[in-house]
Amino acid sequence: MGTILLSEIAGTAMLTLLGGGVVANNILGKTKGNGGGWLMINFGWGLAVFAGVWTAYKTGAHLNPAVTIGLLSSEATEFAPGIPMTFGTTITYFVAEMIGAFLGAVLAWLAYKNHYDQETDAGTILGTFSTGPEIRSKGWNLVTEIIATFVLVFVIIMFGNTPHELGPLAVALLVLAIGASLGGPTGYAINPARDLGPRLAHAVLPIKHKGGSDWGYSWVPVAGPMIGGVLAGVASIFYF
Amino acid sequence: MGTILLSEIAGTAMLTLLGGGVVANNILGKTKGNGGGWLMINFGWGLAVFAGVWTAYKTGAHLNPAVTIGLLSSEATEFAPGIPMTFGTTITYFVAEMIGAFLGAVLAWLAYKNHYDQETDAGTILGTFSTGPEIRSKGWNLVTEIIATFVLVFVIIMFGNTPHELGPLAVALLVLAIGASLGGPTGYAINPARDLGPRLAHAVLPIKHKGGSDWGYSWVPVAGPMIGGVLAGVASIFYF
Amino acid sequence: MGTILLSEIAGTAMLTLLGGGVVANNILGKTKGNGGGWLMINFGWGLAVFAGVWTAYKTGAHLNPAVTIGLLSSEATEFAPGIPMTFGTTITYFVAEMIGAFLGAVLAWLAYKNHYDQETDAGTILGTFSTGPEIRSKGWNLVTEIIATFVLVFVIIMFGNTPHELGPLAVALLVLAIGASLGGPTGYAINPARDLGPRLAHAVLPIKHKGGSDWGYSWVPVAGPMIGGVLAGVASIFYF
Amino acid sequence: MGTILLSEIAGTAMLTLLGGGVVANNILGKTKGNGGGWLMINFGWGLAVFAGVWTAYKTGAHLNPAVTIGLLSSEATEFAPGIPMTFGTTITYFVAEMIGAFLGAVLAWLAYKNHYDQETDAGTILGTFSTGPEIRSKGWNLVTEIIATFVLVFVIIMFGNTPHELGPLAVALLVLAIGASLGGPTGYAINPARDLGPRLAHAVLPIKHKGGSDWGYSWVPVAGPMIGGVLAGVASIFYF
Repeated sequence: MGTILLSEIAGTAMLTLLGGGVVANNILGKTKGNGGGWLMINFGWGLAVFAGVWTAYKTGAHLNPAVTIGLLSSEATEFAPGIPMTFGTTITYFVAEMIGAFLGAVLAWLAYKNHYDQETDAGTILGTFSTGPEIRSKGWNLVTEIIATFVLVFVIIMFGNTPHELGPLAVALLVLAIGASLGGPTGYAINPARDLGPRLAHAVLPIKHKGGSDWGYSWVPVAGPMIGGVLAGVASIFYF
Repeated sequence: MGTILLSEIAGTAMLTLLGGGVVANNILGKTKGNGGGWLMINFGWGLAVFAGVWTAYKTGAHLNPAVTIGLLSSEATEFAPGIPMTFGTTITYFVAEMIGAFLGAVLAWLAYKNHYDQETDAGTILGTFSTGPEIRSKGWNLVTEIIATFVLVFVIIMFGNTPHELGPLAVALLVLAIGASLGGPTGYAINPARDLGPRLAHAVLPIKHKGGSDWGYSWVPVAGPMIGGVLAGVASIFYF
Repeated sequence: MGTILLSEIAGTAMLTLLGGGVVANNILGKTKGNGGGWLMINFGWGLAVFAGVWTAYKTGAHLNPAVTIGLLSSEATEFAPGIPMTFGTTITYFVAEMIGAFLGAVLAWLAYKNHYDQETDAGTILGTFSTGPEIRSKGWNLVTEIIATFVLVFVIIMFGNTPHELGPLAVALLVLAIGASLGGPTGYAINPARDLGPRLAHAVLPIKHKGGSDWGYSWVPVAGPMIGGVLAGVASIFYF
Repeated sequence: MGTILLSEIAGTAMLTLLGGGVVANNILGKTKGNGGGWLMINFGWGLAVFAGVWTAYKTGAHLNPAVTIGLLSSEATEFAPGIPMTFGTTITYFVAEMIGAFLGAVLAWLAYKNHYDQETDAGTILGTFSTGPEIRSKGWNLVTEIIATFVLVFVIIMFGNTPHELGPLAVALLVLAIGASLGGPTGYAINPARDLGPRLAHAVLPIKHKGGSDWGYSWVPVAGPMIGGVLAGVASIFYF
């Protein structure tokens, strides 16, 4: 349990530190990467997963409750080599992912502290922490998150069933792909912890000029990924 | 037969979901990736192939009638390990590729539903489904598709003849290359199913403000890739 | 000899087809990738090498007289497994590289035929075939090409001395790197055949609105890479 | 000692030649890649590491005093296979990294000589050599460099503890990630030699229109990376 906790906290913190960082670099004022564009954001998040997976290699590097629940819904019998699927381990993954995502967001805020201090647009500030839809329509936003997370978890399960030498690069490229292709409407949370952890950080950190944390939308990037993850796990059973 | 059908439907659906998605993200209004540029589209389609190949790994992941017919024209003796080249398997690949490409386009439309609803330009809408030339000149457009598909199928045959550890990354990078280098004139269909399946979806889906499906051009991205695929297969025989 | 000729012609044609294509896509009018930017050009050329190396795998995929002469200047004892270093094989590599580079440029012209027909700027047309400096100063342009080609050939020799699993991806990334980092002043020929073959094609093809082929500069992207290649080969002897 | 010196000088020179080059290409006037954007810079530096690591493979390719000191602070027992951790080898790495970084900056200046000669903005000139913060606030700039270097060294230590086939590509992608995500405030030195070596080159080279070398800031990109490297090394001990 201790190993899961430490490993998944560190890996998910790496994920949201680098992921939150690339968004901050793009949209906060006076950064070197200001206006760097969507492909740069996709690379940032894809490689944030890359770094996070290396960090949490020992425990399978879920970094994402949708992956944890997707594996639980599939025919997999372990969360990672030597880690059984029990109520306790499941909860431990969830808790660690949330804590890590929160901590990573705090670190990203510290790394960009000067730029946050000078940013006066509350929407921009929140956008560096959590996702939000370009066209608010919770039903369709949910559909987008379900489809995108289905792709993520289904193909990750494929990785596990096919011998390959790409290691963490495979999932990094997959996340890059999902961002470029399916991130347009909602900003691709595809991970409840990645969205909710930083949203909590946004709520509690003493950030100048911040506004509300948009709790009204916050359930969409939690429910969508969880549904998509379960559907992918179940689909994989019938697929083989 | 059932395995081919299921696997190639799923893989080709993955392909056109992510491929259609990246174009929608680029050109539909109010998306996060609006105006993201051609390189982002190239990455999106390249990695759409990446995800599709993982999904259809068991059946060789053709995802493309031009690959199927190219292998048939080459010295290969199987479509994939354990799958013989017969009339029945050939037709099954073709049918599965078309069904998958259609379904993926429907999913991409659902993922971007809000954005389609607000899009009023019929040409932009069609552009997220099927390819069209920048300068209409069917003869030369055909030449471009033949050359681009020749490159695709010929190098894929090379992959099979050389030991390597890149797996699906090799074909993803090849598709990225073809898009960046040869996609300029016609938008690189290089795959009859990728173009015709989504065109059918465009014709039947209840999309607001859509116009015609440009059937007058539709044979070019079918015939060009089929010719290019056959030429590559035949050339590979003389090449070894 | 026949194998070297066929393999290196095909591989180098693949190189300049995709490499010339990405520049055409960027700078000719009305293309999908018009104005796609320098990074897109770097990806196009990097992956043009990728496709070319697969194509010419059997003969070591030189595709470049600077690589051929660099190996000759190094401690390597074969041009590729089974291909000895003789006067005859050396000349065969050079001839094949030149023929292939010429043919690839012709194919790229055919693929973008409509766009060439509508292009009226002679400098833009030449720019899709051959390199030219942004600030003309033959001495310093030569220095830039020497440095860039030294990096290419020296690191390629390193690839051969270190076990790795990246295959043709390694050299593709190296060429991408050189383009992004050292391509700014002269457009990184780093390969006499890549520059001279397409320049000959430019001179003989019936292209509307073309101007001169800038023969006054043409020796720089030949001499620079040859000098850089030799220096890298010799340096590698002392380095080990 | 001689092997360490030669190998790390060559590798670090490769690093700052390609790294300095990509910045020059982006921000000096009249280059092909002018205004190419932050992602292009990230690719340039990431692949500069790629080329540098191949070059210095034999000695573990530190190329960076923060990596050297990070390994020293970790449980690692060798700097590279066969190279023990002694006072002498440590100093040799440091000296070689500094000399290499200086030489690479000189080479980048030569490669872009014409463009430097025409550049009249002193800040732009310095920016191609060394890093500088967008918002000057030495305390927070230090924090950013500590966090970014922690990520670099910690994940590099992970690479060494997990079997994988990516070779130098892994660290190249990691550096790309750090640049995209954490390079926004200070330009990601994350390497004392990469910053100080080129700064010395800037100070001594006869560059037209150059201004001061900003020695007042120069300690930040030295101290930050060293602190981050030590923290990562120590953290890795507790992490396993």
